[in-house]
Amino acid sequence: MTTVPEPSAELLQRAGAVRLAAVDLGQTDDQQRADALQAMADALAERAEVIVAANREDLERSAAEGLAPALMARLKLDAGKLRGAIDGVRKLASLPDPLGRRQLHRELDQGLVLERISVPLGVVGVIFEARPDAVVQIASLAIRSGNGAMLKGGSEARCTNEAVMEALKLGLGRSAVAPDALTLLTTRQESLALLRLDGLVDLIIPRGSNELVRFIQDNTRIPVLGHADGICHLYVDAAADVDQAVRIAIDSKTQYPAACNAIETLLVHASIAPAFLASAVPAFQAAGVTLRGDEHSRQHGISDAATDEDWRTEYLDMILAVRVVPSMDAALEHIRRHGSRHTEAIATTDDQAAERFLGAVDSAGVYLNCSTRFADGFRYGFGAEVGISTQTLPPRGPVGLDGLVTYRYRLRGDGHIAADFADGTRSFTHTDLPL
Amino acid sequence: MTTVPEPSAELLQRAGAVRLAAVDLGQTDDQQRADALQAMADALAERAEVIVAANREDLERSAAEGLAPALMARLKLDAGKLRGAIDGVRKLASLPDPLGRRQLHRELDQGLVLERISVPLGVVGVIFEARPDAVVQIASLAIRSGNGAMLKGGSEARCTNEAVMEALKLGLGRSAVAPDALTLLTTRQESLALLRLDGLVDLIIPRGSNELVRFIQDNTRIPVLGHADGICHLYVDAAADVDQAVRIAIDSKTQYPAACNAIETLLVHASIAPAFLASAVPAFQAAGVTLRGDEHSRQHGISDAATDEDWRTEYLDMILAVRVVPSMDAALEHIRRHGSRHTEAIATTDDQAAERFLGAVDSAGVYLNCSTRFADGFRYGFGAEVGISTQTLPPRGPVGLDGLVTYRYRLRGDGHIAADFADGTRSFTHTDLPL
Repeated sequence: MTTVPEPSAELLQRAGAVRLAAVDLGQTDDQQRADALQAMADALAERAEVIVAANREDLERSAAEGLAPALMARLKLDAGKLRGAIDGVRKLASLPDPLGRRQLHRELDQGLVLERISVPLGVVGVIFEARPDAVVQIASLAIRSGNGAMLKGGSEARCTNEAVMEALKLGLGRSAVAPDALTLLTTRQESLALLRLDGLVDLIIPRGSNELVRFIQDNTRIPVLGHADGICHLYVDAAADVDQAVRIAIDSKTQYPAACNAIETLLVHASIAPAFLASAVPAFQAAGVTLRGDEHSRQHGISDAATDEDWRTEYLDMILAVRVVPSMDAALEHIRRHGSRHTEAIATTDDQAAERFLGAVDSAGVYLNCSTRFADGFRYGFGAEVGISTQTLPPRGPVGLDGLVTYRYRLRGDGHIAADFADGTRSFTHTDLPL
Repeated sequence: MTTVPEPSAELLQRAGAVRLAAVDLGQTDDQQRADALQAMADALAERAEVIVAANREDLERSAAEGLAPALMARLKLDAGKLRGAIDGVRKLASLPDPLGRRQLHRELDQGLVLERISVPLGVVGVIFEARPDAVVQIASLAIRSGNGAMLKGGSEARCTNEAVMEALKLGLGRSAVAPDALTLLTTRQESLALLRLDGLVDLIIPRGSNELVRFIQDNTRIPVLGHADGICHLYVDAAADVDQAVRIAIDSKTQYPAACNAIETLLVHASIAPAFLASAVPAFQAAGVTLRGDEHSRQHGISDAATDEDWRTEYLDMILAVRVVPSMDAALEHIRRHGSRHTEAIATTDDQAAERFLGAVDSAGVYLNCSTRFADGFRYGFGAEVGISTQTLPPRGPVGLDGLVTYRYRLRGDGHIAADFADGTRSFTHTDLPL
């Protein structure tokens, strides 16, 4: 097992510098942060050639080291991809400010006024694999929301990440935001020690494999925004429209099978199983999906057998487990036992069944008659996506910029003391004021 | 060090039963949950004699075992205190429903509508010391917000807790909520194993000493709502109104020194220190507060010396550390180093200084010219208090019923699939609808 080392003095000092810069950053206004993002984008554009050259170096070294082709593709940051990332930064600059929103405004007593205001978290720690454009995206999400960030990318991308970070800091240097608000961690030791920086880092965002996320969740006391598993289900109810259900099932599995919001298990009500599977099995075969069925579903054209292991496997591939269930209750029980509380859908034309499913499933997303692939911050209209969280407490589901903010209570008085309310000299008015 | 044991099969089964009951409870409506609270209150009233007799048994046994007088007082549940607790349950029944609130309502495409709805967390685990009226309060908070609860009280109160729980379940048995939604843990092994029930328990609420809270935070992966320390500061700015600042300082320290929102350290700007301390030192002496000062403040009538240890000590007692600082920056730095991000206040008549302090301090509560003792759910007008959280992520600060809920996204479509949006057949409308 990997052990998590104590942070070095150097890392603690660096984290302290990010935290200090973040305090000032938290007090900048919307325009200053939007301008800082434009300055970051400008600097990336200026440094495009240097960045692409650094990336070529990473690619050559990684090719020599035999990096898998899929990872090579993710590592690549050419001029076109970089332009896309820069456009993303400019778009983020134009999104509404998540800070300074008054969520509560209440008079407690004459002259004693309470506000609840959205404020930055402080410092976010981000650990991601391969894709160097993630540095650009995450750094700009952090700055837009007033947070400092400590970023650790994959070692394959180290030259690219350093070149990108240099450009980002160059941009910040021309803005109201201190370049110290961002720092790049370069060694594995540092990324592990990051997990021990409670008190200096407020949120960890892992971007990578399930193993990476699970390791981080198990080894830090800092809150983690993310999900290890995305074991999503589609339940085809007795009253489903077969053609529509097949269409939704195919999309939920095949539109992008490597995504966390793709389904891994299809639950089919016994009474509709013959009709549904007669249509779905050939459709999945045509789409190149391998089906693994329980005993009952194998009577309807599925040849491979599913084992208990299949119910808890996130294939992230063109494989789908299929189970025939005797009732919606059995489907709900299956989801409760094996689901990861990410996103589940029901296909049905029965309103009562729909409402029951929507009420009983306690996943972050519960859908009726549509593809689970909609579980995504951009599709929800958030403009930017920080990640998708499967924890119970907010923020959960697809998380936009709002996931990088918290709130603070501000109370302004004029010499108000609690003793006056305890002895009846004064009493609370508790009157809500306009937001 | 205490080791946290694996949950027993019996405990897992019991937790599973609570979770199942909680699924149904989560689908009850406002009236059903309000009625369940009234039924709980009625049953407590019916069983008052049995409960008070059980409490006498606990008191006698604890007296024989030599329990400290302060703890004896907290353990005592006489007819009057029980009536107060019952009134609390009825009051909670009348609070607005925290569930089913639509927080977002958006058309993603024609016929594809997204909602974000407040829903219960699921199951809360509560570990508390001594006070048996806490069982009543916490069980009713949980049921009101649609959550199952596993409660572990102090062993001193075991007879009382069992009698109370029996009454609560009797009440639930006459309501739409299954009695299985509540369970009482009785052994220390069980309360430790509770910390391992991730996946079955969604939130742990510790009610007790700092040591208890810290132990729980360090030994569970389940989110914990609470605070270990409440090291609150009052900063007396150069431009403070001396009389008002003294009044606020006295109240913040003495109105209830055992509370987490009482101040532990007073920071005084050097330029006002002579005038402020000339007035404050005799006032604190008259109130029975022992002052411990840094070198500078000891030149103004404080005799005891404060050490570095004092800056990070939560006295919960009539002791106050005092430090003279050369600037607001030094005060902010002191708070950043030693504070627990609970509640800090500034006394000043300088608007610019006030706004700077309110912006720069990243505690859950930041106050201007009023006592830190206002940091409390009832005083904020929340009607009920689940606890006070010093974590960065929401919920933070005083937490009302809203702290026991989360949200879920519901998406209703009519055969909508992601592929149609990817290939341009359809495009997102992202139109907000009325809430």
